[in-house]
Amino acid sequence: MSVGLKFPTSILPITGIRLSSCSANIYQTKRTDLALIELSKDSHVVGVFTRNLFCAAPVQISKQHLAELNPRYCLINAGNANAGTGRQGLLDASSTCKELANLTRCKEGEVLPFSTGVIGEQLPVDKINTALPELLDNLSADNWVDAAKAIMTTDTIPKAKSRKISIGESIISITGIAKGSGMIRPNMATMLAYIATDANIEKGMLEKILLHAVNKSFNRITVDGDTSTNDSCVLVATCKASNDCIVSQNSEEYKLLENALTNIFCELAQAIIRDGEGATKFLTIKVTGGKKDTECTDVAYKIAESPLVKTAFTASDANWGRILSAIGNSGIKDLDINNIEVFLDHLCIVENGQRSSSYTEEKGKVIMLQDEITLKVNLNRGKCQEEIWTTDLSHEYVTINAEYRT
Amino acid sequence: MSVGLKFPTSILPITGIRLSSCSANIYQTKRTDLALIELSKDSHVVGVFTRNLFCAAPVQISKQHLAELNPRYCLINAGNANAGTGRQGLLDASSTCKELANLTRCKEGEVLPFSTGVIGEQLPVDKINTALPELLDNLSADNWVDAAKAIMTTDTIPKAKSRKISIGESIISITGIAKGSGMIRPNMATMLAYIATDANIEKGMLEKILLHAVNKSFNRITVDGDTSTNDSCVLVATCKASNDCIVSQNSEEYKLLENALTNIFCELAQAIIRDGEGATKFLTIKVTGGKKDTECTDVAYKIAESPLVKTAFTASDANWGRILSAIGNSGIKDLDINNIEVFLDHLCIVENGQRSSSYTEEKGKVIMLQDEITLKVNLNRGKCQEEIWTTDLSHEYVTINAEYRT
Repeated sequence: MSVGLKFPTSILPITGIRLSSCSANIYQTKRTDLALIELSKDSHVVGVFTRNLFCAAPVQISKQHLAELNPRYCLINAGNANAGTGRQGLLDASSTCKELANLTRCKEGEVLPFSTGVIGEQLPVDKINTALPELLDNLSADNWVDAAKAIMTTDTIPKAKSRKISIGESIISITGIAKGSGMIRPNMATMLAYIATDANIEKGMLEKILLHAVNKSFNRITVDGDTSTNDSCVLVATCKASNDCIVSQNSEEYKLLENALTNIFCELAQAIIRDGEGATKFLTIKVTGGKKDTECTDVAYKIAESPLVKTAFTASDANWGRILSAIGNSGIKDLDINNIEVFLDHLCIVENGQRSSSYTEEKGKVIMLQDEITLKVNLNRGKCQEEIWTTDLSHEYVTINAEYRT
Repeated sequence: MSVGLKFPTSILPITGIRLSSCSANIYQTKRTDLALIELSKDSHVVGVFTRNLFCAAPVQISKQHLAELNPRYCLINAGNANAGTGRQGLLDASSTCKELANLTRCKEGEVLPFSTGVIGEQLPVDKINTALPELLDNLSADNWVDAAKAIMTTDTIPKAKSRKISIGESIISITGIAKGSGMIRPNMATMLAYIATDANIEKGMLEKILLHAVNKSFNRITVDGDTSTNDSCVLVATCKASNDCIVSQNSEEYKLLENALTNIFCELAQAIIRDGEGATKFLTIKVTGGKKDTECTDVAYKIAESPLVKTAFTASDANWGRILSAIGNSGIKDLDINNIEVFLDHLCIVENGQRSSSYTEEKGKVIMLQDEITLKVNLNRGKCQEEIWTTDLSHEYVTINAEYRT
């Protein structure tokens, strides 16, 4: 079940990037579970990774390789997270990089490994290494959606987004793929995302855009409050387009590219939420009128992660009492609850800290029955605002997560 | 569904306390929903209340009354929380106190009001006031369990506990009742608890015991991470027993009473968890080897409130990867994950930060199928330890909370 998601179409190739996918038989049932992204030489590659202390072996290796060399390949498997696997896990991740390096005559440090799936089981290295020649044989610029499919775990639909923009006389393409869909929380999630553009840009500038875009997208989503061991987001610029190299954050060109990339990041982040485990609704939680950005996000996450609020949304029940209770738990010390307003889309349900006099359950129900709802909280004490995206908590979430390994 | 709970028996009367309950028709289906506890004059009464900023009207009134006068009555209704009800809510809570004061010729400030149930609907004051004479007619020292029944909301079984101890030549009785069962979190919960003893003790000493006991009991439980607007815990000493008045924290008598009361508090807190919404398991999360108490509780709550860990317990799946991931998310900066050990009861499942070499899924499954499990995490970096109690996250939790108001 997903909310408002369609199978991706019109996905643009990015000059300098080829992809492939295949089945390495990591899953017991036949499906593709291994993907390769080949990056042209001199591409700029930047990445951000999970902050979970139990960060997976491939995350440790990728961070190290990224710090040392310019990557040529991203090798991604689904079905096994290679996390909680100790020293052997590091050797295993390394081994797949080494094998790919041998086959392609690059260096081990030019391969970034990624894994997603069950935590705590050793990586099936032989299966992966055996599949590498097939992967290399099938590299093509048009395989973005197939790669998106191969990295899915509990996702129900592949996630890919594309966009073209003009920078000066040049046409710039952007394409990104991602996988979700549980254990999604700010500071990354069980989330892998690979976004590429052919824009010509300095590496330092690309890094700045990555941090901005991640902060507005993948760090603004939550399904269940858990943060995974494997989250990784990689942004690549192949620099093959004809635009003048972007070297300043203050340039018009920088702003255009930042904006377009941030939009793609947000679309991918929202796609992850729309396909959240057991999601029956796509919820935007918007908090305005805060003194600080952080108090807006604190309130937003408290609401988004309250099981009582989430189950009320599942039942299409405008249980504003649970929303007020969640706001009251957000830990803002001097919050005056009598100033708080709450809206479902444009319907005011709470004013002055209590049920709005104009509100009726019937009006609330109409909105609650929608698939997509914006819950807006106005703290009325400042000028900051933030929004995050989340889902409800349904029976299917429990079913998926109570049966994941069986 | 509850785990290991029986209908309470052998509940002791406390000299100086009478109780009654009746139906005030607050619920649509007939059940008792109003309880009264009468306290003899010169009882010492101390209390702690929710820290939710949206604290309910009765909580505000009770705190104020408790600060001004010695209470003679606790008046408790289920079915309506009188929270998020604004100024009218305060007037309503006051009105029931006033009416009871009129009928009993005490002062309004000598009545403590409590409410639990749905948030955001106005209190049915007339129904409550109409029922007060019946309540007063039926006061009896033996009505503890009936009172426990009347204050239930989604609880499936009344919670009452008793104990006798000797202090010197005197026999001291302790009896407590409580209600849960969702929205349970430290800093109190949708939890009401009333514990009384006939022990002779100074009020200041009683206050110290309350804080100690609450910290070790009601502040160590979590069902779903939500904190309610109405939580209240009241401790009464009627001072009718023949022991010499306890005036020093260093006395043997103080320790005996503190210990006995803390045990009753813990039994009631655990009973709330055992009857947690949709609970199929009673889980003790014990974290040892911490540098500070707070890092032990941080890790414990991160595990206890992880939906992924909770659903794994529902499925009796020893998914230790999710446990490691939760520990990794606890925010302890310099935690060395390679030193971590995890045990299910006495079975070591993780050592050196990865699956124990002696562990098998079969051994884990045997323990996971139990109703009651202790999950122990040794951080191996200090001497502190803490334990908390929680439940799993089942389909029934979603069902209960997606249908609460309908």
